[in-house]
Amino acid sequence: MDFVNIAKLAKEASFGIADLVEDIKNEALLKIAEAIEAHRDAIFDANKKDLMDAEKLVQSGEITKSTFNRLKLDENKMRDMIKGIRDIASLPDPVNKKLLVRELDEELTLYKVSCPIGVLGIIFEARPDVIAQISALAIKSSNAVILKGGKESINTNKKILEIINSALDKINNFPKNVIQQVFSRDDVGEMLKCDNYINLIIPRGGNKLVKFIKENTKIPVLGHADGICHIFVDESADLSMAEKIVTDAKTQYPSACNAVETLLIHEKFKFKAELLASLQLSEIKLIDNPDSWAFEYGDKILAFKTVKNLDEAVDHINTFGSGHTDCIITSNKENAEKFMNKVDSAGVYWNVSTRFADGFRYGFGAEVGISTNKTHARGPVGLEGLTIYKYKLIGKGQIVRDYAEGIKQFHHKDVI
Amino acid sequence: MDFVNIAKLAKEASFGIADLVEDIKNEALLKIAEAIEAHRDAIFDANKKDLMDAEKLVQSGEITKSTFNRLKLDENKMRDMIKGIRDIASLPDPVNKKLLVRELDEELTLYKVSCPIGVLGIIFEARPDVIAQISALAIKSSNAVILKGGKESINTNKKILEIINSALDKINNFPKNVIQQVFSRDDVGEMLKCDNYINLIIPRGGNKLVKFIKENTKIPVLGHADGICHIFVDESADLSMAEKIVTDAKTQYPSACNAVETLLIHEKFKFKAELLASLQLSEIKLIDNPDSWAFEYGDKILAFKTVKNLDEAVDHINTFGSGHTDCIITSNKENAEKFMNKVDSAGVYWNVSTRFADGFRYGFGAEVGISTNKTHARGPVGLEGLTIYKYKLIGKGQIVRDYAEGIKQFHHKDVI
Repeated sequence: MDFVNIAKLAKEASFGIADLVEDIKNEALLKIAEAIEAHRDAIFDANKKDLMDAEKLVQSGEITKSTFNRLKLDENKMRDMIKGIRDIASLPDPVNKKLLVRELDEELTLYKVSCPIGVLGIIFEARPDVIAQISALAIKSSNAVILKGGKESINTNKKILEIINSALDKINNFPKNVIQQVFSRDDVGEMLKCDNYINLIIPRGGNKLVKFIKENTKIPVLGHADGICHIFVDESADLSMAEKIVTDAKTQYPSACNAVETLLIHEKFKFKAELLASLQLSEIKLIDNPDSWAFEYGDKILAFKTVKNLDEAVDHINTFGSGHTDCIITSNKENAEKFMNKVDSAGVYWNVSTRFADGFRYGFGAEVGISTNKTHARGPVGLEGLTIYKYKLIGKGQIVRDYAEGIKQFHHKDVI
Repeated sequence: MDFVNIAKLAKEASFGIADLVEDIKNEALLKIAEAIEAHRDAIFDANKKDLMDAEKLVQSGEITKSTFNRLKLDENKMRDMIKGIRDIASLPDPVNKKLLVRELDEELTLYKVSCPIGVLGIIFEARPDVIAQISALAIKSSNAVILKGGKESINTNKKILEIINSALDKINNFPKNVIQQVFSRDDVGEMLKCDNYINLIIPRGGNKLVKFIKENTKIPVLGHADGICHIFVDESADLSMAEKIVTDAKTQYPSACNAVETLLIHEKFKFKAELLASLQLSEIKLIDNPDSWAFEYGDKILAFKTVKNLDEAVDHINTFGSGHTDCIITSNKENAEKFMNKVDSAGVYWNVSTRFADGFRYGFGAEVGISTNKTHARGPVGLEGLTIYKYKLIGKGQIVRDYAEGIKQFHHKDVI
């Protein structure tokens, strides 16, 4: 089947799932979790096939050892995958929430109600556990989805989707084709062009993938290419707090997008030498004149720069940052507020590690991804980011002419 | 100055205006209204120049009479323009609103706060009053803006912007270059490519303009190309209500985007002949087999079709509609709810004219435009559509390691 036909089926499925009641969606999620649990051995077998092929690719240098590790499903990942689906089932329904109820006039009531976006296109790399997670998020938010995984995990992906879809087939009234999968590289190109049918693209993978996608589609993309996060140590920063926060933000998980990449230090901060020495003790490699300030090391490497004042720090961040998460360490409240207002990033932190930028830590219950967009959804995105809203207007035959001619007047009373 | 430099100045200005306090923004708006009032004669003079040139273009057929009319500023438009700016000043500040306050743990508090989007690119056609309105919306929402108007209104546009900017120059602490204007056709192309600096494009004009823009940029576009609105007269519809609503939706302002273009009638509706006869009496031209069902007449012309049932009506709308505003006329509540849930449009109405789809009628106080997007903002968009949010996280030195290792636990208590 060519891609456009798959996309048409997805659009049709999106109409089918749009008004599915919460109970059926949750039943579907629990059945999927159960089916994955019941067929875990078949999934491990499929994964073994992928791993055997991948081993050769590691030896020939075509994929890295870390890609191999992401590809590998173990007991822990399997457990997390199943638990993740059940957790999503237990979250409140993001769809059909009344965001506004306003009486425009007697018996003329406007409802702003959350609803699904439509069709999601998901492009992901080696991690096969993404399929189950994204499928669950899509079902919970009443969206249809087309998945394109990395070729390295093709056997695992196929097996997981087969299990998901045979579980869904057994649910009464569950529409067909809500979760579909495509496999070829050409399909990616087709997906990116398919703005008639696909409403949102979510890339899950490295920054090369995300950059490529953002540069090659007119469909809205939810995600971030880079995570170039900064910590600014202000004049009045507490030394031990600075040591603790910078060390955590750089070393707790250096390849995370919310790990710090650049340290900016106020020239009047008295403990610069002590701070740098302490970071080096934590095996952080410091670079004070990097080739580029807009670089994500993803490793225990930290660029640093001395700045004259808060304004220079803010300018540096707004120029070289990626709008992800940036932190000021200071005991001066006014400076903290100025920093948080002036820095144009999804997360602006005061005296806290940048590593907190995460949907689970924010209490969203599930994370779709972290967005550096300036429209729709920004920062860690929960299920809400997979919804939009529609306006329902309910009346008794009202017409605009009466209001235009002054026979009737709006009274605009908010009920919610 | 080339476009990229203008865009850089706009980005810089966007940082300057981002945290401007409400009082200064409102002072700026009132000063602009005052200045336009004081210089109304100079604006009318500039407009006369444009009209003299435009008259020749009407004669040579290069522009239509209706473009000429939109170009023309009269006393009413002048008054509305000035009143519009004052109205925007009196609206609540859309920026700096706390959308969520959540304690993640003791002394670790997350704030989701509304903030400006950044730089808006506005491309509009003949109407010179758009400049004042969009400038006011941008200032109120703390965004910088680059305006590109139609060449027919160049003298009026220049004069209005000159007056706006000299009013802003007199406001203490008001950043430079918040409102800039470009003039050449090449600038449009440059603007559409400028996704490094421009965060949102808002086209104000006919559907050709909007389609061109949507097809030629990766920057998010807020607007709608088509307004192909439907009314479905269900089996149980009341005849007189149907006559009233359809007549209003087609004739009250036929060129509006929320005017109805297609009437769908349930085959079991008993008063079809009476309804159609009544519409013809209101000088509506009925077409029962149009070349295309996806056509916006913008005139007193109405396509109509008999459908077997509600499902066929919904399918027709989701296939040929533009996702703008669609209505069901019925006395059957269940059908009304099914229609409103199944139709994938920004506005889904029950027993009400489609002409109500409008920011002022919805009580938003100002309208940025009407969007048929599936992300960010949908339907009539008020000032809120020119904002996004950031997350501020304020702590006392907390690090992620403590939570990852189970030494501390999140408690996620919502304060707002």
